Amino acid sequence: MTVTGPKGFRAAGVAAGIKESGALDLALVVNDGPQHTAAGVFTRNAVKAAPVLWSQEVLRHQRLRAVVLNSGGANAATGPGGFQDTHATAEKVAEVLGTGAIDVAVCSTGLIGERLPMDAVLSGVVTAAGALDATREAGLAAATAVMTTDSVPKQSWKSHSDGWSIGGFAKGAGMLAPNLATMLVVLTTDAVIAPEALDAALRAAARVTFDRLDVDGGTSTNDTVLVLSSGASELSPRVDDFTELLTAVCLDLVYQLRADSEGATKDVDVIVRGAASEQDAINVGRTVAEDNLVKTALFGSDPNWGRIAMAVGRSQAEVDPNTLAIAINGVTLFASGTTAADRTKVDLGARAIEIAIDLGIGSSTATIYTTDLSHGYVEENSAYSS
Amino acid sequence: MTVTGPKGFRAAGVAAGIKESGALDLALVVNDGPQHTAAGVFTRNAVKAAPVLWSQEVLRHQRLRAVVLNSGGANAATGPGGFQDTHATAEKVAEVLGTGAIDVAVCSTGLIGERLPMDAVLSGVVTAAGALDATREAGLAAATAVMTTDSVPKQSWKSHSDGWSIGGFAKGAGMLAPNLATMLVVLTTDAVIAPEALDAALRAAARVTFDRLDVDGGTSTNDTVLVLSSGASELSPRVDDFTELLTAVCLDLVYQLRADSEGATKDVDVIVRGAASEQDAINVGRTVAEDNLVKTALFGSDPNWGRIAMAVGRSQAEVDPNTLAIAINGVTLFASGTTAADRTKVDLGARAIEIAIDLGIGSSTATIYTTDLSHGYVEENSAYSS
Repeated sequence: MTVTGPKGFRAAGVAAGIKESGALDLALVVNDGPQHTAAGVFTRNAVKAAPVLWSQEVLRHQRLRAVVLNSGGANAATGPGGFQDTHATAEKVAEVLGTGAIDVAVCSTGLIGERLPMDAVLSGVVTAAGALDATREAGLAAATAVMTTDSVPKQSWKSHSDGWSIGGFAKGAGMLAPNLATMLVVLTTDAVIAPEALDAALRAAARVTFDRLDVDGGTSTNDTVLVLSSGASELSPRVDDFTELLTAVCLDLVYQLRADSEGATKDVDVIVRGAASEQDAINVGRTVAEDNLVKTALFGSDPNWGRIAMAVGRSQAEVDPNTLAIAINGVTLFASGTTAADRTKVDLGARAIEIAIDLGIGSSTATIYTTDLSHGYVEENSAYSS
Repeated sequence: MTVTGPKGFRAAGVAAGIKESGALDLALVVNDGPQHTAAGVFTRNAVKAAPVLWSQEVLRHQRLRAVVLNSGGANAATGPGGFQDTHATAEKVAEVLGTGAIDVAVCSTGLIGERLPMDAVLSGVVTAAGALDATREAGLAAATAVMTTDSVPKQSWKSHSDGWSIGGFAKGAGMLAPNLATMLVVLTTDAVIAPEALDAALRAAARVTFDRLDVDGGTSTNDTVLVLSSGASELSPRVDDFTELLTAVCLDLVYQLRADSEGATKDVDVIVRGAASEQDAINVGRTVAEDNLVKTALFGSDPNWGRIAMAVGRSQAEVDPNTLAIAINGVTLFASGTTAADRTKVDLGARAIEIAIDLGIGSSTATIYTTDLSHGYVEENSAYSS
């Protein structure tokens, strides 16, 4: 199940002709209410694509009737003309659904710097509106239509025992993909929830899931995570329960994004404990996760804790080599300023790897989700646009 | 010519048996005076190797008689025992030269977390002292003995028209090498120069050369740059002239380090102009230089300015997409918020690539020296210690 799992939603994915391949490339997700509450989080990149600027603006009134998404072009760095294209797309969706453009968010993914083929986009919107359905298949088609270099669609759906549920789909992962593959996520719920609570829940969930997925340090011009609430279950969950289930759906999508990231042969959890602050824990985790020497060692199944110690030391966090401890897959290799165990005791043959770093200074913690750096990554990312 | 270019210096490089291969692995550089002024800059990594802790301490009195360097082991993360090994090495050098250990700096490079074979190190010191010579060959032997995964020794020597000169050798480049290949640099001069002026000149030169060489973002536990002044020319240059020539020698070594960095197929200058501050310019340059999507595109000879725009936008600097301009090899591809020229107009076939980024905000500038990210990098760095 996916965005069509919760009650009150229809979806569609069609081949609009934006991609020359003829693959699915335009998705529409519609909230049939009765409630139309929505929230979003967006890329912090200073160079924002036109659809991000548009969607940020319409989300100000915390309400969405629909989201239209396209692959085959990011509509980023396209100037005022690109913004007009996004506006025209939202107007078209509004027209076919009988609503206002201010109730329509737009997401795009693909190469930066190219204008979209608007004839294909606008006729695709009409086709998609005619294909809208609440079935599992319709949700899958939408999840498939946003794929760029993704090898599989990523979907999640979790229900609460009280009877409400949260679903969603995702594509990309940060900037890991050659196609400047933005991370786009659409989440849906039939829980009854106030706009402020929905916004707070999304920010809390994204902060410990999508914000901590770091494959190559990239932050796309188009990254967007949206959540839409239909209220169709007529159930009003406690905010804590809602945030918890939303976080679980987001984490499920994060695991799928990581597993499908280009060239990855290892799924790596970098767990930082004992930090002076949560920001320190995040800094250390991200520095280790982005370090190419650590990542290539993991690709080689080499438990090279010296490279991890180097990366920890160069982070901007408060670090004391004498209180630092580094364990890989449960074996502490470095502690008290020196070697704690022989590295040959660590087996990195499996795909899942856990790097546990205890700074031994405070009590803050954070987990960053990353991958190794392989020949596949270099191959796919050096052979794209030219 | 190299460290033995300036008058008043002798050097040696010997095979002490630290490396199992039997290659040269221990170098000694001796300042025969009459002046023994010295300065150093060291890694900012919080996890510092024993020889860094030692050399920082002895440099407090701004004076050095000799530098002893070994490859085959970094002596990092080796605890109090490792520090004692460094101390014993300095004492041995002091003994054979008839000076105090406080006048001897120590540098090490190799794998982190392993103790050095001290019998080999100490007997190597004796052998090296016997081989000390002021010849070009002796300087080359020293430059060769510090190599780890370097394929060639890196040396430079430049003389001022007034008759004084500066020489030096270097190995590694940041953390680019699989052997945790620290950057070690020893510079020598026969100019007469006061300790404070020497220190200031070194910091000024390093700030725009070694500090701006960024192959993979790594900062070794062992990075060390030392400069020793013998005063043997009996000439006292103006501080500006000295700083200028020292910077030229450092830049020459930076180019050699970059050209020899593992797997590199492109030499890339990232030139940032129009920044609100020099720190902003450095931030933008480093973010672009460390971005794996930019680096893999360059490996593929792909002028993918969209990835550069993404990296600029995610830097912590003040960035306005509407004033930003990006040129590759002299062709402006992005300006005024949109595409300025077709990317096919850029030829990236040659090894040298210039990325020019104008932020259009202020007047500060910085250049970062980097490389592409190739299969060779992944291969060499994934196949090392295991």
